[in-house]
Amino acid sequence: MKFLADGTITSPLGFVAGASSCGLKKNGALDMMLFSSDRPCHAAAVFTRNQVAAAPVIVDRRTLADNDSAIHAVVGNSGNANACTGALGLSNAEAMQTAVAAALGCEANQVLVLSTGVIGVQLPMEKINAGITMAVGDLSADHGMQAAQAIMTTDTVPKHAAVRVELPGGTVTIGGMSKGSGMIHPDMATMFGVHTTDAVIEADVLDQCLRTAVDQSYNRISVDGDTSTNDTVLILANGANGVTVDDARSRELFQEALNKLFVYLAQQIVRDGEGASKFVEINVAGTENDQTAHQIANTIATSALVKTAFAGSDANWGRILAAAGRAGVPFEQEKTALWVGVAGPRELQLLVGGTPTAYLEKDAAAVFAEPEFKIWFELDQGSGKATVWTSDLTHDYVSINADYRS
Amino acid sequence: MKFLADGTITSPLGFVAGASSCGLKKNGALDMMLFSSDRPCHAAAVFTRNQVAAAPVIVDRRTLADNDSAIHAVVGNSGNANACTGALGLSNAEAMQTAVAAALGCEANQVLVLSTGVIGVQLPMEKINAGITMAVGDLSADHGMQAAQAIMTTDTVPKHAAVRVELPGGTVTIGGMSKGSGMIHPDMATMFGVHTTDAVIEADVLDQCLRTAVDQSYNRISVDGDTSTNDTVLILANGANGVTVDDARSRELFQEALNKLFVYLAQQIVRDGEGASKFVEINVAGTENDQTAHQIANTIATSALVKTAFAGSDANWGRILAAAGRAGVPFEQEKTALWVGVAGPRELQLLVGGTPTAYLEKDAAAVFAEPEFKIWFELDQGSGKATVWTSDLTHDYVSINADYRS
Repeated sequence: MKFLADGTITSPLGFVAGASSCGLKKNGALDMMLFSSDRPCHAAAVFTRNQVAAAPVIVDRRTLADNDSAIHAVVGNSGNANACTGALGLSNAEAMQTAVAAALGCEANQVLVLSTGVIGVQLPMEKINAGITMAVGDLSADHGMQAAQAIMTTDTVPKHAAVRVELPGGTVTIGGMSKGSGMIHPDMATMFGVHTTDAVIEADVLDQCLRTAVDQSYNRISVDGDTSTNDTVLILANGANGVTVDDARSRELFQEALNKLFVYLAQQIVRDGEGASKFVEINVAGTENDQTAHQIANTIATSALVKTAFAGSDANWGRILAAAGRAGVPFEQEKTALWVGVAGPRELQLLVGGTPTAYLEKDAAAVFAEPEFKIWFELDQGSGKATVWTSDLTHDYVSINADYRS
Repeated sequence: MKFLADGTITSPLGFVAGASSCGLKKNGALDMMLFSSDRPCHAAAVFTRNQVAAAPVIVDRRTLADNDSAIHAVVGNSGNANACTGALGLSNAEAMQTAVAAALGCEANQVLVLSTGVIGVQLPMEKINAGITMAVGDLSADHGMQAAQAIMTTDTVPKHAAVRVELPGGTVTIGGMSKGSGMIHPDMATMFGVHTTDAVIEADVLDQCLRTAVDQSYNRISVDGDTSTNDTVLILANGANGVTVDDARSRELFQEALNKLFVYLAQQIVRDGEGASKFVEINVAGTENDQTAHQIANTIATSALVKTAFAGSDANWGRILAAAGRAGVPFEQEKTALWVGVAGPRELQLLVGGTPTAYLEKDAAAVFAEPEFKIWFELDQGSGKATVWTSDLTHDYVSINADYRS
């Protein structure tokens, strides 16, 4: 498997992308993007579980229920989420499908829609339509990077990559881009994960691969515990290179490559978390099952007290233990252990049997002062385990979010 | 009913309190307190549900299981939580009981213990014992305020009050103090609520009254979503005034007074929340039941994005709706409504049918700019309702918690 840090959604064969600035963002940055395939794609997606789903999410769910085997294009805008916009919002999302379909010569139900930005404001359709026209004119196999830029909101860097993997039948490429740096939390975030591949893969297999990869990546990250109205992870497979993913071996290799790409793009979101100055991996093990491990890891990852301790480079493990203790998972504190470290597993043990070891404060402080470090919290109830990635809670997070609309 | 803002735990007859500085707090402030009754008390308490319970919580649970009808005194220290301290921590908490019992001439199982402060450090027992001796020497009916000061950690003001209520049999006084300004969240917080009364009331009735009042007060507040290892709410009833709470009418009046005192002391905690600049009441109604209303209200109250919007005086209702949507309670967004206001209910409607009304941004901004305001979020599923109180998430919160131990 080859990892391409400068890869994009147009790294796989047969995809082109374009972007434009249509005035949704005040600063004139790219805010509209489009990508399409030279042939119909199998498609799979997962969406926010928030009860308040944005219009594009509702439209995409309906579109994919109707047609998951001949998607042609994806259009997306930043600067306006088209959420909490009622019936008009729905018809505006449909109008985006129609406009793209007309420009590309396909059907409306072959187009998926993404929107991200402020909630509760109707899309300015004149700008949107102009933006789509310009983005269509910009379509090129070289413009995957511009598409990644056009879906940014409070993101400070575009997030994109690709992987190339040798299957028994030949080489397959998977490309992707992600966005989101606030409202990031497991079970989907204010976040897009948008992926393409030139492999030949059935829609139902693609769906299973997508869900498996999401569970290990986008569902394992947390910036602030908030989930959004617009979260979408999708993948289009156009089969342009004629290499089929069907037997067990090719599926395994494809899945591995997909996981690697998804984890990278998900971690990129945390690294670019709003105001984040640290990237922390939280490992929980020894629970009854993986689900309870995930529950504890999430509670630690979203604790304001834990995250401010990270920000202060304070090895305040008491907060980690206190967060674990309120995760809703019963355990005996006398049987807990905690390690921290920068590289290898379990470098420095801070707790054994629920009480502090004789570690030196300066050693613990040295770990927490690193921009990246890891935590291992272990119980003795079974073989359940989970890993999540989180950031710290800083002054800059407050600044960014207290002043978002001003 | 008469509310006494300057009342304390020694406002009821027969209680004395004392405090001392024994060197647990670096700044030399009061950090040890003791109060006792001139006769044995009926007692009731609720404790943290955190799996990681501090030694004093474990000791108090055991003490009350053994003896809830003849408690004589409560000793408490700040500066050290005696949590995650293993077997030595337990024996140190027991040693505090023994020291107080010896000084007051009662049994160890007639003494309750409170500790709050840093987690994972053993109590310096020499200082603790000296502090207890000094606090015993300080005992006086006039020192309720000093006791309130001695349990403060990051609190900026002591929190105390009393209520006086006319029962059919005579006047009863209930006094109380609370502490806590971080790790504050429903289902108990890093928080003490300590109460006394001179009424004659059976231990089981007292327990029911306590639980009812807690559910409407200390369980309805949130500063940061974290719950601690040491949370304790307790009440001692010494019967010193001979007025009995037994029939329905006296119970009703007593409960009303207790609720009022508890709500006041709980709200004081939020008002003094770490770095808090706003006090926000969140009302949710129209859910299937009160529990689901509480669940939604809590999710709004603990959302980092909602709380930073409060800090920025930003009427960003999209974040409120998005938080409600991830509370785990199914609802139709087309049937949601939202109002905000400063005084009366439902002053300014922002949402109807899940989409914005034609309100003026400046009117909404004016509400969010107030130091205190209210939110009403309504569904149409039933008659469930809940109210919680929360604060904003500010730069000062981050500063306080990033630098807590340094």
